[in-house]
Amino acid sequence: MNIQTQDTPKVLNVGILGFGTVGQGTWKHLLENGKFWPKILGSQLVPTRASVRSLEKERSVEIPSDCLTTDSASIVNDPEIDLICELIGGVEEAKELTIQAFAQGKSVITANKALICEHGEELFRLAEQAGVGYGFEASVAGGIPIIKVLRESLVANDFPLIYGILNGTSNYILTRMEKEGASFEEVLGDARELGYVEADEALDLDGVDAAHKAVILAYLAHGIWVDLNEVTVEGVRRISNEDLAAAENLGCRIKLIGVIRRNFENNHVSVAVHPALIPVEETIARTDGVHNGICLNGSVVGTVVLTGRGAGQDPTASSVISDLVDVVKGMQGLSSMPKLLHVSPEECSLASPQEIAGRFYLRLSVDDRPGQLAKVAECLAERGISLATVSQTPHENNQPASLILTTHQTNEHSIAQAVDQLEQLPGVMDKPVLFRMFDPKGIF
Amino acid sequence: MNIQTQDTPKVLNVGILGFGTVGQGTWKHLLENGKFWPKILGSQLVPTRASVRSLEKERSVEIPSDCLTTDSASIVNDPEIDLICELIGGVEEAKELTIQAFAQGKSVITANKALICEHGEELFRLAEQAGVGYGFEASVAGGIPIIKVLRESLVANDFPLIYGILNGTSNYILTRMEKEGASFEEVLGDARELGYVEADEALDLDGVDAAHKAVILAYLAHGIWVDLNEVTVEGVRRISNEDLAAAENLGCRIKLIGVIRRNFENNHVSVAVHPALIPVEETIARTDGVHNGICLNGSVVGTVVLTGRGAGQDPTASSVISDLVDVVKGMQGLSSMPKLLHVSPEECSLASPQEIAGRFYLRLSVDDRPGQLAKVAECLAERGISLATVSQTPHENNQPASLILTTHQTNEHSIAQAVDQLEQLPGVMDKPVLFRMFDPKGIF
Repeated sequence: MNIQTQDTPKVLNVGILGFGTVGQGTWKHLLENGKFWPKILGSQLVPTRASVRSLEKERSVEIPSDCLTTDSASIVNDPEIDLICELIGGVEEAKELTIQAFAQGKSVITANKALICEHGEELFRLAEQAGVGYGFEASVAGGIPIIKVLRESLVANDFPLIYGILNGTSNYILTRMEKEGASFEEVLGDARELGYVEADEALDLDGVDAAHKAVILAYLAHGIWVDLNEVTVEGVRRISNEDLAAAENLGCRIKLIGVIRRNFENNHVSVAVHPALIPVEETIARTDGVHNGICLNGSVVGTVVLTGRGAGQDPTASSVISDLVDVVKGMQGLSSMPKLLHVSPEECSLASPQEIAGRFYLRLSVDDRPGQLAKVAECLAERGISLATVSQTPHENNQPASLILTTHQTNEHSIAQAVDQLEQLPGVMDKPVLFRMFDPKGIF
Repeated sequence: MNIQTQDTPKVLNVGILGFGTVGQGTWKHLLENGKFWPKILGSQLVPTRASVRSLEKERSVEIPSDCLTTDSASIVNDPEIDLICELIGGVEEAKELTIQAFAQGKSVITANKALICEHGEELFRLAEQAGVGYGFEASVAGGIPIIKVLRESLVANDFPLIYGILNGTSNYILTRMEKEGASFEEVLGDARELGYVEADEALDLDGVDAAHKAVILAYLAHGIWVDLNEVTVEGVRRISNEDLAAAENLGCRIKLIGVIRRNFENNHVSVAVHPALIPVEETIARTDGVHNGICLNGSVVGTVVLTGRGAGQDPTASSVISDLVDVVKGMQGLSSMPKLLHVSPEECSLASPQEIAGRFYLRLSVDDRPGQLAKVAECLAERGISLATVSQTPHENNQPASLILTTHQTNEHSIAQAVDQLEQLPGVMDKPVLFRMFDPKGIF
């Protein structure tokens, strides 16, 4: 680390691994706000080197060519580099580089939710052992400062419920389908052209990206690492324009949400990502386009809702830089990230599907035979599920009719069994479409 | 400070000045969450003594009588007390006690917006000189962690616009007037009974409380202390049910908002609190009841909105406790509140009314003489103000008619002059009612 005279601020060189959207944004805003860092930190933050896949590619942010390398490890190992921003994405290489940086006593900032979700437990332990900072504000909800709010601002709270929109791309698709009546395929095409969809489309469309983030939030709120395999993960592919219209008739909007619930009587936690019908009065139901929104229900503070841009160059860079500032304060002995909580399985463990209660929306394609509704209702009744509303939309031209049902309170286990059975019923033409109905006011 | 063996966590005794709503909440939640403090801090936070006006009064939170005193200074001076929560309200005594605590090397947490607004500059300097922490998260927007988000999470941002609902009592009144058609006086009566209205009613009804908070936010965002006398402050007393209905016809809701704008071309800042018509799509327009909501427009992050409970025992205690935790981390050399920015007048100064542009809503009580609208329009045109919409609601039984106008873009200076002149027009029966129309999307 450079030691300078008292008159000039100490210079801290920042190395950026991965010079994609977020990496370029971090470089740009570190430079643009350069005059602030000495005032706030007594040190100057200088973006110094960045690693790329290809040296030839055109980039929107200007960077001297001798600052670029294709060798990320050379940045991590460069003794002139004080701080590492790991913005390459992917898991294995990112993990290796992060551990290498820790071993050199370098703090790391990341926006990598997949990495934190899969290896956070190990990486946080290694960072603590190495006595370095590991900032990950940018890994959840882009520019929304949800990590700091959960870890620090709401430290006096337990969280019976956290839920919200954690993936902007799928929310963009749903919003356009709803507002314009456009088809899923049509909007997905536009989203691809706009560069909104990750190369691995399952991350956005099948709820995996949101699940990574939900796992991180569950850890911050409850101190347990939930295996991604134990998270209910459903995406947006099965949501039709018909469902969006039916939801509207029910006073709801359909959103892809992450839901983290804790029952403080038995300390069971559930983590899920799925489409849900949400009453239109809720801020989350009205959070549209690429925005993210998170509703925290704290035992002391009550309900706090944060909304903002959940991805993109500038919002994510805003979070990366706030972590850099925190980490530097830690290096100066002025601050460090607060201790993360780890709990034993006795203190907190996963809920079973039987414990997760809720109401559900069901859409069945049925042929128009008499007594069909009676058979469906009977099948549900056998599982103790009673119906709240029923409506039938006849399709044209000999197509099957749509039977749209909403249930009263039941649980995840019963409804899953009922749906399996409904699929076998004569006259039910297709796999039933099942969405949760999520009313945060009805949960407690 | 107690020094303990390594096996038992160090005990930090918390003294609470003022055992009203927030003081009791802080006591209660410090006790209830007692098992967390050693985990998070390595120290135990123990509420130890509290000061009250009367020892006899019944209180909802249980406290041993020997913990109570009527002498706040005795707590500040008690060598056993490590940390002070100043929750007495009022300015002079609170200031004295705070300075006394600093002088003894004790950090102070406060919820006192009037004190920070009026003496923050001096108190922050004294705290810095004494090397102690001074936490004030609870002073703005109750449980919403706006101070930390502005100071830390969004450190990479400049703020061209911050606006929002900063007073829950007036928002409660407006919401009930709007939803139920109830009169101002009727709802005010209920609010008084519910204990929502401060003893000095001007704080809630005339916008003074919101102005205190807006001054604090302006300081955090821009580093300048704006004198309360230089803030435009208007309250909710002039808002009628007629105005609320007219606003709805214009696709808006009327809210009492604090608005802090900065023009980055000339670095002029304006701070104002006033009713405003806000387009109903905005989250702030839909933030109802006792809730607060703040919309931050950051140069890097874009728009971030936070909503939550802006006052009350539990939400405010949540913020007091998060400050306590931060301050203790500071005492352990693990963290301190980040440096506050101070700027010179050349770097940032107040905007003149001519610079503050906007659209306006005007309601005039007029007698029904012919040509009245022409005269009004002419009077506005002389000031360069053109009309966007006009509607006239005839009153019954020879009462004056209401002429409701909205303007195109003009500025605060021109509209103020025009209103003075309109009041003198023959046939204008009363002081014109003037509200700003606030469309955050239209500002940039």
